[in-house]
Amino acid sequence: MQKSDGMNYAPEFSGESKKVVGKDDFRFSVIGLKHGHVFAMTNGLLEAGATLVSVHDDDAGLVEMFCRRYPGVVVADGEEGILNDDSIQLVVSAALPCMRAALGIRVMEAGKDYFCDKPGALTLFDVERVRAVCSATKRKYMVYFGERIHVEGAVFAEEEIRKGRIGRVLHVTILAPHRLNAGSRPDWFFDPGRNGSVLCDIGSHQIEQFLTYTANEDARITHAYEANYANPDHPEFSDYGECTVLGRNGATGIIRVDWFTPDGLSAWGDGRVFIIGTEGTIEIRKYVDIAQNDASDCVYIVDGGGEHVYHEHGRTGFPFFPAFVLDSLNRTETVMSQEHVFTSMRLAVEASLLAAGERS
Amino acid sequence: MQKSDGMNYAPEFSGESKKVVGKDDFRFSVIGLKHGHVFAMTNGLLEAGATLVSVHDDDAGLVEMFCRRYPGVVVADGEEGILNDDSIQLVVSAALPCMRAALGIRVMEAGKDYFCDKPGALTLFDVERVRAVCSATKRKYMVYFGERIHVEGAVFAEEEIRKGRIGRVLHVTILAPHRLNAGSRPDWFFDPGRNGSVLCDIGSHQIEQFLTYTANEDARITHAYEANYANPDHPEFSDYGECTVLGRNGATGIIRVDWFTPDGLSAWGDGRVFIIGTEGTIEIRKYVDIAQNDASDCVYIVDGGGEHVYHEHGRTGFPFFPAFVLDSLNRTETVMSQEHVFTSMRLAVEASLLAAGERS
Repeated sequence: MQKSDGMNYAPEFSGESKKVVGKDDFRFSVIGLKHGHVFAMTNGLLEAGATLVSVHDDDAGLVEMFCRRYPGVVVADGEEGILNDDSIQLVVSAALPCMRAALGIRVMEAGKDYFCDKPGALTLFDVERVRAVCSATKRKYMVYFGERIHVEGAVFAEEEIRKGRIGRVLHVTILAPHRLNAGSRPDWFFDPGRNGSVLCDIGSHQIEQFLTYTANEDARITHAYEANYANPDHPEFSDYGECTVLGRNGATGIIRVDWFTPDGLSAWGDGRVFIIGTEGTIEIRKYVDIAQNDASDCVYIVDGGGEHVYHEHGRTGFPFFPAFVLDSLNRTETVMSQEHVFTSMRLAVEASLLAAGERS
Repeated sequence: MQKSDGMNYAPEFSGESKKVVGKDDFRFSVIGLKHGHVFAMTNGLLEAGATLVSVHDDDAGLVEMFCRRYPGVVVADGEEGILNDDSIQLVVSAALPCMRAALGIRVMEAGKDYFCDKPGALTLFDVERVRAVCSATKRKYMVYFGERIHVEGAVFAEEEIRKGRIGRVLHVTILAPHRLNAGSRPDWFFDPGRNGSVLCDIGSHQIEQFLTYTANEDARITHAYEANYANPDHPEFSDYGECTVLGRNGATGIIRVDWFTPDGLSAWGDGRVFIIGTEGTIEIRKYVDIAQNDASDCVYIVDGGGEHVYHEHGRTGFPFFPAFVLDSLNRTETVMSQEHVFTSMRLAVEASLLAAGERS
């Protein structure tokens, strides 16, 4: 993911990946190639040993690109060709964001687990519809919160938190700038009705991180605001968003998302996470450590003993994928609970709705 | 200021200071030594060429400490001894925060300018009283917003912004952790009625920076929250505060203040400022660049051309002090307008009041 631009970043683990299943033990297909995250999701599953079977999208060009990247994948006979294939355990999707919930419902009703790009839904109605079908079918509706589970620095930080390295987590501040590359974006990207607003879209990543790092099952959006500072050609688009979160356990979160990565940055965004614990602090510099070195996944920990830096690129890997494959096979919830996914989705929509009331 | 602990930090410019007046051209005295900032304020004025005349505090121990630090200073015959001395142009004060406004009124009514430690007032009533006397007497009520004007990295960043280096400023995020050193703090420190809450106290620094960097004359507090996470012995005290600000020109600000500097940090706080402009971004690492080098005042600028770092310690100096001395002599407002001071004071109180409604 590091150093790449635009939408087609697809992190691959540079270390030794951990295959937890053999060929055809866990078969998945892909429906919907509208966002480049689909490559990242596919790579993660392949590294875990999953078998990619088939692909469908209504855009033949996207399908061709996908097939070039993954030789041997079958072009499915439409969505139905995948939904009716009983050998498929999981459907991966980066369909248009506004279509993801409805597709997920069809997937779960066809008896398969679902793994879609963030955000999992754009409306509270969709969150509740998905929750109901999930409950009725006992299938999984997993969302790709890549800015945590597909970032080695973030994985390392989470492990340190769980070990108690910084004591009880009191607060998380996340700054998540992204490069706009406006010319390369499709129309739907700028339409919050189809893509979600900035707090729903890239905000969902951050809200999920807040819940995870602070070990909160639920939270309340205490403030949300979006603005369009520099994109007058797309008046409905927000290029800036901020929100604050109060977790049920009292921990607080501050989230800032924006599309203002300067042209000169060597990565697509200078994503940072600042975590305050009772015994220390953690800062994650996810994709770049500006003007310092060429490394990503730099984790700075300050505790009672001093200041420490950890360079985690190529070291921690992405334990989410093997664990999720096993969760799907074993009907467990080790990577995250289904309720955690829905809470993250719901809060991102709520932040977006709250901001819509004041948007400038 | 760098690397020091607790309250008695007193930055001195390590470069060549710029004296703008000769001996006795600008005479000042000090009333109120309750906060160590008084040393920083005094040093800054002395470096500009001002002449320190006399000092008063009701605590003889503090007076003795001050006299040891500044040999030759006269112990005044009470507050009146200073107020009645027509040779004194300016009174500096780090009196108890809750006493600063009333003292400032007496100082201005005695025909002198006033320069007190932040926050300039703890209540809206005091802000308005001070404003009225200021207007009637035509004297200055200046506040020491040291986290901007006494930090070389911050001074450098402001200069770069004014030069247009990052285009129009859209947003400022400030993280301002401070070391608590609870055992060394006087009782009044923990009492928001005497010290202001965390958003009024250390928040006032940050609100002032927001207004300056975004060139806003006024703003609105859109959210504020405080918590006491880890100081149950002081139930009225907030060890954490957050607020968001919307400037009149549309720029946004996020401010986080807290007392959770880990013991192992080599400075009293890892203060950061993140500024987003239309053409680039600035990050100031004010007092430490954790685990990287021993430098303070590191400014990271990313623009269209690349990633750049500037090490400003000992380089930019503190232009506030000579300019303020000249402002006082010439009755100008080059350092900041009186209205800017009052707006910063008022917004800090408003953030504190808004947070009081939800404090946990």
